[in-house]
Amino acid sequence: MRLVSFERPDGTRSYGTTDGATIRDAGAELGGTWPDLRVVLEAGAVASLAGKGPEIALDAVKLLPPIPEPEKILCIGLNYLPHILESGRDKPEYPSIFTRYPSSLVGHGTPLERPNASRELDYEGELAVVIGAAGRHIPVERAWDHIAGYSVFNDGSVRDYQNHTTQFWPGKSFERSGSMGPWIVTPDEVGDITAQTLTTTVNGNVEQHTPITDLAIGIPELIAYASTVLTLKPGDVIATGTPGGVGRYRKPQLFLEPGMSVEVEITGVGRLVNGVVDEGR
Amino acid sequence: MRLVSFERPDGTRSYGTTDGATIRDAGAELGGTWPDLRVVLEAGAVASLAGKGPEIALDAVKLLPPIPEPEKILCIGLNYLPHILESGRDKPEYPSIFTRYPSSLVGHGTPLERPNASRELDYEGELAVVIGAAGRHIPVERAWDHIAGYSVFNDGSVRDYQNHTTQFWPGKSFERSGSMGPWIVTPDEVGDITAQTLTTTVNGNVEQHTPITDLAIGIPELIAYASTVLTLKPGDVIATGTPGGVGRYRKPQLFLEPGMSVEVEITGVGRLVNGVVDEGR
Repeated sequence: MRLVSFERPDGTRSYGTTDGATIRDAGAELGGTWPDLRVVLEAGAVASLAGKGPEIALDAVKLLPPIPEPEKILCIGLNYLPHILESGRDKPEYPSIFTRYPSSLVGHGTPLERPNASRELDYEGELAVVIGAAGRHIPVERAWDHIAGYSVFNDGSVRDYQNHTTQFWPGKSFERSGSMGPWIVTPDEVGDITAQTLTTTVNGNVEQHTPITDLAIGIPELIAYASTVLTLKPGDVIATGTPGGVGRYRKPQLFLEPGMSVEVEITGVGRLVNGVVDEGR
Repeated sequence: MRLVSFERPDGTRSYGTTDGATIRDAGAELGGTWPDLRVVLEAGAVASLAGKGPEIALDAVKLLPPIPEPEKILCIGLNYLPHILESGRDKPEYPSIFTRYPSSLVGHGTPLERPNASRELDYEGELAVVIGAAGRHIPVERAWDHIAGYSVFNDGSVRDYQNHTTQFWPGKSFERSGSMGPWIVTPDEVGDITAQTLTTTVNGNVEQHTPITDLAIGIPELIAYASTVLTLKPGDVIATGTPGGVGRYRKPQLFLEPGMSVEVEITGVGRLVNGVVDEGR
């Protein structure tokens, strides 16, 4: 199943399922019980969405990040060997984790925002894991059971702010500087997620291309590590890190400018497309 | 005024004001309009709490972090020159920012939790600023107008996890590893916050002692910088960084163990006291 959150043509928010062309507006039927997709996950009620709700054309709605207000968005830095090497760093023993707030993300089809404070907005195509079942101290061998599904993530980064200090937070937190979507695909539909391939293109040119198997620290290990620290909750997002090929280390450098288009595609998961606009004054 | 959030003897949550000995349970009267202190701040209604609600003895309630569920807890690393020097780093040009989740904090009087995963739980006494008025791109000269008040913060840190990678997040995010409280003091009651002094004691021994004037990057500059990145909202917390004297750099090292007591006191603001317990299995 593919799960979406969206804004209807009348501006109200809902959620449902999609086949990629049409949405079933499950929230129109079930919104009284489960107001949003995060609550659906908390209730363990994903299967109840199947076939529910009136149809709307996908291109008639504004897609939101699939979980519009997750409690946590944990991002993994430097988790593909080629990107680690291009950044001049060693292979990691532990995952490098920082956070984003929901206000830093837009959905598929909504433009990223280049902040007035910087000319160094960069793309980072990533696989996102969405937590389905809460847990703390999740053992590696049980980690797959805690996953509700997968999505595509652009960990948009404002490089000068990211490098003001050792802590990445400022460069990863500008409002509307990243994106997630178009949907969450449930694990049964993806099959083996590690057999998939991620490709990022900017204005149609391939800039990042990697098999998911190249993850330096795998998905179960990321879940186990994060859940040692705190309880993972339904709807929490783990963005698993970006491969080599980001604009900052490209020769020549490539930063995002208004009018550009960034696409991140993961086979079996989806294709996340965003334009770029300036913040505005 | 001093603002508190607390759990009543019957386990329900409320908020109100305190003179340090008695609480006025303003939530008992106003909770229908403003369910928690964060909403009171959003409504700009702090003045309405004065004298409202029945009296309860302070020691009859469980104090919560003054804003139990802030949208954002932004922590500043390395922001007093002595602590910067003891960590072997240079004076910063920009604030080093990382985040904590609300689950990482307890209130005054509730023990900190030493995680099973580590023996390196450390204290960090800090001044916390609580945002009152929302804003983005807040100029330095207007920053004071966005402050609802001040509180005392213990940025409890699990040092081995903090140093697994360059990103501090894991070491700052263990559940119940830090604290905030006992209350928020409004600016009119504190007067000049920079004229105050912070002292951390462990089992009665002074380990940190600094004038707030030693902040390397001042409060208005922190607010201006963070609000360049995103919108600060009512109830957001900025923990302004810890001075020298943390346990990790002490000779000999001093890590927190069950049965110890940590007190962080800021003159004119309050005294935050927490015991220490093990996580439990």
